[in-house]
Amino acid sequence: MSFTPIQPLGRAEAAEAVLDAKRNKNLTWEDIAAEVGRSKVWTTAALLGQHPLSEDQARAAGKLLGLDQVVVDALRLPPVRGEAVVDPSEPIVARLEEIVQVYGGTISELIREEFGDGIMSAIDFRMDFERVHAEEGDRVVITLDGKYLPYREF
Amino acid sequence: MSFTPIQPLGRAEAAEAVLDAKRNKNLTWEDIAAEVGRSKVWTTAALLGQHPLSEDQARAAGKLLGLDQVVVDALRLPPVRGEAVVDPSEPIVARLEEIVQVYGGTISELIREEFGDGIMSAIDFRMDFERVHAEEGDRVVITLDGKYLPYREF
Amino acid sequence: MSFTPIQPLGRAEAAEAVLDAKRNKNLTWEDIAAEVGRSKVWTTAALLGQHPLSEDQARAAGKLLGLDQVVVDALRLPPVRGEAVVDPSEPIVARLEEIVQVYGGTISELIREEFGDGIMSAIDFRMDFERVHAEEGDRVVITLDGKYLPYREF
Amino acid sequence: MSFTPIQPLGRAEAAEAVLDAKRNKNLTWEDIAAEVGRSKVWTTAALLGQHPLSEDQARAAGKLLGLDQVVVDALRLPPVRGEAVVDPSEPIVARLEEIVQVYGGTISELIREEFGDGIMSAIDFRMDFERVHAEEGDRVVITLDGKYLPYREF
Amino acid sequence: MSFTPIQPLGRAEAAEAVLDAKRNKNLTWEDIAAEVGRSKVWTTAALLGQHPLSEDQARAAGKLLGLDQVVVDALRLPPVRGEAVVDPSEPIVARLEEIVQVYGGTISELIREEFGDGIMSAIDFRMDFERVHAEEGDRVVITLDGKYLPYREF
Amino acid sequence: MSFTPIQPLGRAEAAEAVLDAKRNKNLTWEDIAAEVGRSKVWTTAALLGQHPLSEDQARAAGKLLGLDQVVVDALRLPPVRGEAVVDPSEPIVARLEEIVQVYGGTISELIREEFGDGIMSAIDFRMDFERVHAEEGDRVVITLDGKYLPYREF
Amino acid sequence: MSFTPIQPLGRAEAAEAVLDAKRNKNLTWEDIAAEVGRSKVWTTAALLGQHPLSEDQARAAGKLLGLDQVVVDALRLPPVRGEAVVDPSEPIVARLEEIVQVYGGTISELIREEFGDGIMSAIDFRMDFERVHAEEGDRVVITLDGKYLPYREF
Amino acid sequence: MSFTPIQPLGRAEAAEAVLDAKRNKNLTWEDIAAEVGRSKVWTTAALLGQHPLSEDQARAAGKLLGLDQVVVDALRLPPVRGEAVVDPSEPIVARLEEIVQVYGGTISELIREEFGDGIMSAIDFRMDFERVHAEEGDRVVITLDGKYLPYREF
Amino acid sequence: MSFTPIQPLGRAEAAEAVLDAKRNKNLTWEDIAAEVGRSKVWTTAALLGQHPLSEDQARAAGKLLGLDQVVVDALRLPPVRGEAVVDPSEPIVARLEEIVQVYGGTISELIREEFGDGIMSAIDFRMDFERVHAEEGDRVVITLDGKYLPYREF
Amino acid sequence: MSFTPIQPLGRAEAAEAVLDAKRNKNLTWEDIAAEVGRSKVWTTAALLGQHPLSEDQARAAGKLLGLDQVVVDALRLPPVRGEAVVDPSEPIVARLEEIVQVYGGTISELIREEFGDGIMSAIDFRMDFERVHAEEGDRVVITLDGKYLPYREF
Repeated sequence: MSFTPIQPLGRAEAAEAVLDAKRNKNLTWEDIAAEVGRSKVWTTAALLGQHPLSEDQARAAGKLLGLDQVVVDALRLPPVRGEAVVDPSEPIVARLEEIVQVYGGTISELIREEFGDGIMSAIDFRMDFERVHAEEGDRVVITLDGKYLPYREF
Repeated sequence: MSFTPIQPLGRAEAAEAVLDAKRNKNLTWEDIAAEVGRSKVWTTAALLGQHPLSEDQARAAGKLLGLDQVVVDALRLPPVRGEAVVDPSEPIVARLEEIVQVYGGTISELIREEFGDGIMSAIDFRMDFERVHAEEGDRVVITLDGKYLPYREF
Repeated sequence: MSFTPIQPLGRAEAAEAVLDAKRNKNLTWEDIAAEVGRSKVWTTAALLGQHPLSEDQARAAGKLLGLDQVVVDALRLPPVRGEAVVDPSEPIVARLEEIVQVYGGTISELIREEFGDGIMSAIDFRMDFERVHAEEGDRVVITLDGKYLPYREF
Repeated sequence: MSFTPIQPLGRAEAAEAVLDAKRNKNLTWEDIAAEVGRSKVWTTAALLGQHPLSEDQARAAGKLLGLDQVVVDALRLPPVRGEAVVDPSEPIVARLEEIVQVYGGTISELIREEFGDGIMSAIDFRMDFERVHAEEGDRVVITLDGKYLPYREF
Repeated sequence: MSFTPIQPLGRAEAAEAVLDAKRNKNLTWEDIAAEVGRSKVWTTAALLGQHPLSEDQARAAGKLLGLDQVVVDALRLPPVRGEAVVDPSEPIVARLEEIVQVYGGTISELIREEFGDGIMSAIDFRMDFERVHAEEGDRVVITLDGKYLPYREF
Repeated sequence: MSFTPIQPLGRAEAAEAVLDAKRNKNLTWEDIAAEVGRSKVWTTAALLGQHPLSEDQARAAGKLLGLDQVVVDALRLPPVRGEAVVDPSEPIVARLEEIVQVYGGTISELIREEFGDGIMSAIDFRMDFERVHAEEGDRVVITLDGKYLPYREF
Repeated sequence: MSFTPIQPLGRAEAAEAVLDAKRNKNLTWEDIAAEVGRSKVWTTAALLGQHPLSEDQARAAGKLLGLDQVVVDALRLPPVRGEAVVDPSEPIVARLEEIVQVYGGTISELIREEFGDGIMSAIDFRMDFERVHAEEGDRVVITLDGKYLPYREF
Repeated sequence: MSFTPIQPLGRAEAAEAVLDAKRNKNLTWEDIAAEVGRSKVWTTAALLGQHPLSEDQARAAGKLLGLDQVVVDALRLPPVRGEAVVDPSEPIVARLEEIVQVYGGTISELIREEFGDGIMSAIDFRMDFERVHAEEGDRVVITLDGKYLPYREF
Repeated sequence: MSFTPIQPLGRAEAAEAVLDAKRNKNLTWEDIAAEVGRSKVWTTAALLGQHPLSEDQARAAGKLLGLDQVVVDALRLPPVRGEAVVDPSEPIVARLEEIVQVYGGTISELIREEFGDGIMSAIDFRMDFERVHAEEGDRVVITLDGKYLPYREF
Repeated sequence: MSFTPIQPLGRAEAAEAVLDAKRNKNLTWEDIAAEVGRSKVWTTAALLGQHPLSEDQARAAGKLLGLDQVVVDALRLPPVRGEAVVDPSEPIVARLEEIVQVYGGTISELIREEFGDGIMSAIDFRMDFERVHAEEGDRVVITLDGKYLPYREF
């Protein structure tokens, strides 16, 4: 090709590079999140390509992980959020899908009763992830926290 | 048909009858849950057909809601848990699906880092649903709480 | 069945009854909207089953259209908003889908440039529909007007 | 391969090059549209590969963006308009799809009442995109404007 | 149900009644088209539910075929044009689909060369169907005749 | 790879090369068809990969278009006729699909009435493509002409 | 419904009635084929709804099986040949599908080599079904016999 | 990559090389089958990647076709038998699929009547392919011959 | 309908009746299997509609369960074995599907190594189901036991 | 690309390298399992990419098979467990799917009766694979052994 590619890396390739660097430097997502100045969940999602990083956030992550500049630049590209980025048949995701399947109607019912005709936002949204110790085996506790948005009459 | 149907109602028809009765008696899921002796989320899911009720639970719900005996009996039938019971394009469910899509990879990463090679159970699982007041608009807060299950080597 | 159905009509059946009555009474959606006190688009969508009507709105529509009480009651049931209610291969809808296909990427680009990382809400949303006269043939003009929602960092 | 490829770039690669150049030159779509002599929406769609550019339009865009000649030539190739170019699960597009889902039937109804048996053209069509300031948060306003086409009896 | 259905027949049921009556009266589509005052193709499509009939057209068809008034009324309802009305795996339709598959790209090429960037309208459209005698076996000759619609720049 | 590829080009790559050459030499499909000695429709389809060319036909096309020998050879390879070669969502093809959808049942009816239980062949088949001038806008006229094949009883 | 259905049975219902009658009268398909005057395969397919019967054929089958006149009439209705009539996951059909999967490319190759560019007709087609005795277990032998149809150049 | 690939060719690439060599050497499948010592159908299927060849069979085919050793080795790799290897929309395969569609139910019926509750094996299976001359046009005759396998009660 | 249905129940309705009767009589599948004279797994599958029962087996099951004669007769009808009878998203089935997903390639590998080019029969097949006590929680143990079938060369 | 890839191999490429090495060294899965210190089934699944290997396990496998260090490292990467890794239409897998289809409902029934409302875990799970000799042909015997997990009420 006769033209010079200016931005050779996409978000997927940048995520690969981040995972390799994290493995080699033996860092945790907590470590990276501390550097980026955001929560562990947001930081992981962002570095995996689901959120754009600001210039400062990308630079901080790049410095800690020792990323090349092209990777740092790629972290600031628009995210790729479609369904291709997750496999609904992967066992962990499959169980999240099953939970939506079993409790989706229940959540609709309870939002309708408690709030009215509207939804839980997936945009004005935050998620928390915690390990909770329990005698009969530790538990994964995930909190979904989204703003209630009422349908507007017009 | 020449044979007498013994159990004429399935779980879906029972759920319809429950919703009608709840509307007519002006009851909340909280009211029903108190009678059934389980949490609001579990009770709603169970009456919508996602969990079987014990004889006592069904009788208690039936009494409060004034359900016919065939409906009470139907509440004890095996649940119908497949994907047909929820519509992934319904706006509330669609946002839950989008959350799985955007954060599914993040959850896999964090389970792997924090726990190891395994999953969050959707069976040894509980869910909480809360309305949280906030200045800029109230929030829907849903907690997913499942036991960590490690893959077993053999 | 041995139990008495309390609410025998769903939203789909109510919409059928509304369309029949509208045809027989020779009314326009504008006429009905005036009675309901909402815009033509919202009123049409609501009576077709996409929004719940308040008690007053349902009564007003019922009176104008001469609907039976069961139909009036059904108009207040929760809406059925999933993808089953519209056929993407129906010629009018197919062209809307094609517009999303041809201009979807453009809208993403322009939202990103003009607003930042976020979406146009489909909930805090209003639509307008107008016939615009033009020499070479009248035009359908549809306005989509949704609140910008930024992704929240956390 | 023993033959010399004459046209090495497709529309998708050209769009990539345009996006890279736009980012590096810090230009807006408005800037590019002014040079091309078309509206912001049409210009964005065209440069993303959804419309062919004329020789003059391509040259003007190329000059402003500093594109290589192969990219300028590629902008004049036939567009690639199929559904592969947009991801219906991407959050912005997903909301447009949901709007078609919720209001598709309403639009059919209103076209039928206002115009008769026909459609809104997606070809003799123009779109407008605007940011509208509002107290409770700015709004995305998109106008779809297509010629009404009546089914012809024969 | 406690309300009186005003319009008990849809287009599909009306088409069934038309086919039964046609069989019993031993009529051809040509006969019916002559009465309706439209071509054989349009008339067949309309009576099968793909076009609405005017009051006069429905009355004429009803008289010739001896249809009940409810059927005559149903012929004037909005058509149901989505993909559910035709089975792409039915052998005749499957061959039409195969023709689109084999020659679709060719038609795109030739429209682009002969007319420019645009389409053949499926709305401002007419179809002809003829039996042509040939020595080695008669032939089905179908003519598709649609207005060329150019994409509009804006 | 240690073995020498004998035939490095498939039909798709050959079609790309043909389109590039045609663009550079400013030729029409009519010009090429004249050289190949077949109709414009057949020639376009064949060069796009839907029919195999004979040695003479490939040589003639190659000479006019100035194609490399590997491209000329590739034109004689078996065609690739599956559904992957056409995108049903591309606007021109989408309208052909819609025509099959709206008129598929009508064509079945008319073949059954006029010919009996059988189909229109897509193999013993020819297509014609014409631009027809008309006051209110030129028209695309496509003729499908296939042998009637009766189901054989046995 | 206020109009009298003239033809209350479709092909599927007629097939059900045939199967019931065959079971009750303890007849074989061979017996029925002898009466109808066609082969066992054609007769079975026809009575299951895949071919129309002539008046004489339907009468003969009806007499042997003791079918009601509405069933006999329904056997003469147009067949319903789409993919809905067979389940590709049913074990017998699944193996036929697997054979097409494993040997489909081979059949294409051999038709191309032996005959040229064309297909085996599924319309000018006959099938034979036989039980062949063999020491290590009897065998099902099915013969597909279709006319070769060459693609026609034009 | 720093490791040396030992087996650089898969079955698909080997099949490509076989087809190229066959074309260049002007051989028939019959010729190759004679060398391999198996039937024409089995040999074609095997060389196209649907069966593994023994060392002797691969060597014999390789010698006749003049294949490189890597191709000969690849012919002995496990076959790739899934549905990806055949395109159900390719015209020849499409007709085989249509035959399964039209006659699948008939075959089930006749196996059940003639043999009992079981299937025709697709593994203990052989296929024959023949050209049969006929006045009104030659015919493709394909014989499917599979062992009957009864369901086993337990 | 003017003809008398001879066999009004299908296998699905019969299975419903069996489940109702089993619940009312408080019987186990073991009890029923003892009466039918087959294993618990086969008997359950057969009564749920996956295998035909012999006259004696159906009579024995009918007597124990107190089934009407139409139900007993229906148990002898051909089974309905397609994919519609099981929901792959139902949690228990979903885990079986996941096991096939995770271990499918492993089973292929091990069959190939241990037996050669062939499959495990799903017809000459038996399944066992057992509860095995274990300290840390009881286990479901399912044994799949199918005859190895080698591909036959020809 | 200007950055140095640290981990150039994924699990799929590592599995390819393992299969090649196993073929060249003439090793069995049993041999490899003995070295890895796990069962034959687990070891095969792990090396094919379905389980992560520990440092010791990867080193042991690498030594026996003579794998490059990059392959050994890749064996320790997270597994790729989604549905893309297995083809449901591959004949061996297709029969496993058919077994789930035919016996899925039976397994649900028997788990419900024997254990209660719950599932068989696919995580706390082990599988065994055995060749069992039998007179009429050897058999593949696969044992699925998963912990019973009861739904938890809350």
